[in-house]
Parts: sequence; structure tokens; C-alpha cells
Amino acid sequence: MRENDFLEWIAGQTPADPRVPIGVGDDMAAVRLPGSLALLKIDQALDRVHFDLRTASPQQAGAKAVNRCLSDCAAMACQPAAILLSVALPADVDQDFAQALFAGCRAAAEAFACPIVGGDTALWDQRLAITVAALGQTGPEPVTRAGARPGDAICVTGSLGGAILGRHMTFTPRITEARQIAAAAPLHAMMDLSDGLAVDLPRLCRRSGVGAIIESAQVPIHADAHQLAFQDQTPPLAHALGDGEDYELLFCLAPRDVARVQAACALPITRLGQIVAGSELLLQDTTGNYQPWPQGGWEYKSLR
Amino acid sequence: MRENDFLEWIAGQTPADPRVPIGVGDDMAAVRLPGSLALLKIDQALDRVHFDLRTASPQQAGAKAVNRCLSDCAAMACQPAAILLSVALPADVDQDFAQALFAGCRAAAEAFACPIVGGDTALWDQRLAITVAALGQTGPEPVTRAGARPGDAICVTGSLGGAILGRHMTFTPRITEARQIAAAAPLHAMMDLSDGLAVDLPRLCRRSGVGAIIESAQVPIHADAHQLAFQDQTPPLAHALGDGEDYELLFCLAPRDVARVQAACALPITRLGQIVAGSELLLQDTTGNYQPWPQGGWEYKSLR
Repeated sequence: MRENDFLEWIAGQTPADPRVPIGVGDDMAAVRLPGSLALLKIDQALDRVHFDLRTASPQQAGAKAVNRCLSDCAAMACQPAAILLSVALPADVDQDFAQALFAGCRAAAEAFACPIVGGDTALWDQRLAITVAALGQTGPEPVTRAGARPGDAICVTGSLGGAILGRHMTFTPRITEARQIAAAAPLHAMMDLSDGLAVDLPRLCRRSGVGAIIESAQVPIHADAHQLAFQDQTPPLAHALGDGEDYELLFCLAPRDVARVQAACALPITRLGQIVAGSELLLQDTTGNYQPWPQGGWEYKSLR
Repeated sequence: MRENDFLEWIAGQTPADPRVPIGVGDDMAAVRLPGSLALLKIDQALDRVHFDLRTASPQQAGAKAVNRCLSDCAAMACQPAAILLSVALPADVDQDFAQALFAGCRAAAEAFACPIVGGDTALWDQRLAITVAALGQTGPEPVTRAGARPGDAICVTGSLGGAILGRHMTFTPRITEARQIAAAAPLHAMMDLSDGLAVDLPRLCRRSGVGAIIESAQVPIHADAHQLAFQDQTPPLAHALGDGEDYELLFCLAPRDVARVQAACALPITRLGQIVAGSELLLQDTTGNYQPWPQGGWEYKSLR
């Protein structure tokens, strides 16, 4: 059972609930409170899985943990309203370490004027685990993964691949850009790219009940993907599709609105494909031929 | 630096924010959303710290993780509206383990009609870590730790001590009782007893800016504390004050209201002392003499 399958199993075990208009399976959940809709997310960052304290500072680890969670807020075009932190600290760290970790968390949250409202700290004889929960608020209609329609343009912010060279620790969650884009035109579906386009686009398509065609020549490839390709002899496109940890926005909208969101957003936005009816995902190469969808991405761990 | 000091340091680092009427330092935080007040909590349960998988099943571990967080909801007299789960799974567990863990979480949440709305799962080569975040809703005035006044009666639900003999894995969060009590009379302050009365009452007093006198003869001692005392030759009262993990409610109210909350609550409620002016905490023995406040409780771990 793969992680993805386990989350699907959990989703399947969770009965529909009128108080929960968006449950397990989107970037955030939505819960109805009297007078408002609360968006919620939890996300963990573990030493040697999501960061490595042999090379990263505690500030960097804390900042990444918070920014990963804020990237999910961006994916719903929502404003983060509050953050909670839970930290399992190795028993041998000192006070400076704990304070530096917290300072990294706080700086990341303050960049989006988001207060840290609660926390839990415990010591254990295992590695550092940081868990971040976010509360967000949005307009009446949060942007989910579920609304993509055949004919929609598929767009991404920024460029993809090679984040492991360093960007995975230093990225900026696309909260500002998400709100610029969502204000400029109706978005049908959106998510953040955490596990790589090859894994994440099928998730969006599955939630929306659609297929997709991506034009490989249009995929915006990051300079880091080219550098990594030079090192490991893997094509830059494979890095852009499979590496993960881009934390860019993937979104779908009417083709006529693409120019408008490009004009509204400070970051480059690339149209790289279109949503089609059915459930198939295809990669169209520069000669017009269709290639099978690449396997891989970050989601490769499995439970026995 | 002790865990408690670190949380106080974090609280001191967190600027006041009009959007956050209750921040770090109470059982839950409160965040203003348009039209409602969201109560939030995060809490972790770690293998060999909060449970031990050598003796506990994954169901029990999951249930305890959720119930610890729900106990904080009880402490604010709030109704849990949603739960988020984050699980760092040891890489060598199988699918049955993961499903049993989730089943334990779900059963605990369903006991209070609380939906699990989101989650995060990752595998690592370390021990199991479960983090639970809760969203709660309440009336316009959640019951905090900060409102105790000189002259208030100090009460607890149930009885205390010796939870390590087994109750710490099987307790029921006092959500129902908290709502019965809060509906019966105005509560000035409340918290749940997780680290032991000896540690938790000073926290409530510090937040309220008051002192307290506890009559040792009135402390309700659990049968488990007597059994443990028989095993380790430590007085039962010391267990009742210091053991922790009781997950009972500690609350303060006008003395005239004690009978009313006792009548409203299905569990026994014991009046065991009173709030006084100042900041001192004293233990009054059966001869009327004052003893110094016991040190200890669960909060004994320190950062270097």
C-alpha cells in the first residue's frame, strides 16, 4: 500500500458529513462554523525525510515546515489566519537549537502576517519531527482540486525541477500569487506541486473526473533541472516532471482567461496543456506524438 | 530550560494580535473568523513517551493521541468540530498496523461525533509519532485558565493519581461533563489535568494572577493511586498530586454554584480548595497546618 493509496483508503473510510464540505483529499479541508468556513491543513516535516539537520540549520528546518503548510493555503487561494506548531525535539539539543527552530517558523509565518497561536513541545530520543497545522480563511468558494473541465487550460507558476539542489529548503509559498490569480479570473481547480507534476496532475484529474494532455515543449524547466541533468544524465524534462518539491501552483481555467492571470501575477505563468474528457493523461512531444505518462515523482514509498 | 519555560518563552515572543483573543498558554487558542470564533489545539503523542508500542496496540496509541487533544477541547468547554491527523510511521510497519492506528483515532473522534477532515502520512526509520490538531467551537465566551478570582471554589471531576497503571491509555475526555458543568453555572476558569495537579494548578493560578489553598484531605484519590502507593511506598496523596495523565477537569467557580454543578454532572465533582489573593500555593493538612506546594508532576524534562 502506497502513501497515496493509504490516504485514499482513509478518505473512503470517512463518511460524508454536511459540516465538512471539503474533506480528506484536497489541499485543505473545509469545515463549516456558524458564520464562516474554516479551512484546515496539517503537514509534517521530518529530519532526513523532508530536511537533513546534517546540512540544514534548525531555522531552515522550521521555515520549511511552516512554508510547506502555507503552500497548501496558497493552493486553495486562501489567506492563512493562524498556525499551530508541534515539535518532537531530540533530547540532546540545547536551548539555542529550540529557539532557532522557533525563530525559523516565526519568520516564515510573519512573512504572510500569520500568527502562531499555539504549540506543543516534547523531548524524545529520536530525530526531530515538526508538525504544522494551518487555519485559513477564504471567500465563499475556496478553489479546490475538483472543478477542472474539458477544454480548460492547464497552467503553472514559475518553473519546475531540480529543487533538491537547494530550492526545496528556500522556496516561498505562492500565497500572494494565488490571490492575485484568483482575483483576476475564475479558477476551476488548483493545487500546489509538492510531489512533482507527474504525480500531482493525476491527483487533480482524478478529483475532477477528467484527463489531460501536457505538451512537453511547454513545460517550464528550471535552471536547476538542467544542472541536475548535466550531473546525472537524466533529461531535464524528466526532472521537471518528476522531482517534486517545486511548491509552484498548478491550476486550470478557461483558455480566454490565461492572458488575464498572466498580467495579474508578478511571477511568470506558463500554459502547458489542456484538460480533456475521460481519465487518460498523455504527454505530447514536439513531433505531435503522444507518450505515456511518466511514472515516478516523490510518491514512491510503500507500506508492506 | 524546561518544556514549560520554553512554551512561556514562545508566548513571550508572540506579539499580541487583535485577531487572536486567546494565544499560546491556554488549553486551546482562539482565532477570530468573520462571524465566529475558532478554537484550535495541536498535541502530539510519541512512542515511548506518551505510549509504548511494546505493550500498547496501534488502536490504543491512535485513540490516546486523539483523546489527549479532545481533553483540551473539554478544558475549554468546547465542542470539537474537526480533527486533523499527522502520522510519522516507522518504515517497517505493515498496512494492518496503519489501518488499526487510524481505526483507533476514528473511534475516539466518533465518540464525540467529531469528523476527521484531513491528514498527513509519512514513513521514516524512527519511532511512531502521531500529531492531532483539533478545531472547536464554543459560545461567545470560551472558558479559559485566566478568570479565577479570590474566594472561588476549586473543583475537580473524578479522582486522581496512578493513571500509569492503565487509565492513561483508556481515559475518556471529559467533553460531556465540561458542557454539563458549563451549562449549569458560570465557570471562572478551567483546564484539564494532564501533568498532575501539582504542576497544572500553578499554571492556572499564574494565568489568573491568583494563589490557591488545597486541603489535602479533600483531594479525591483514585484507587490506582492507593495500589501504586502499596507498590512503591509513596503516599497515595503524592500520587494524586504528582502522577499526571488524569485528564480530569480542574475548574474554579463561585462557592454557591458548587452544588449546582455537582447536580448537573454525571461524574462525582469534588471541591478541594479555594482561590486566594496573591500568588502563593499552599497545601493545608488535616491538622490545619500549611505545607509547601509539592514539586514534581510530569513536567520534569529539560533542554540543556
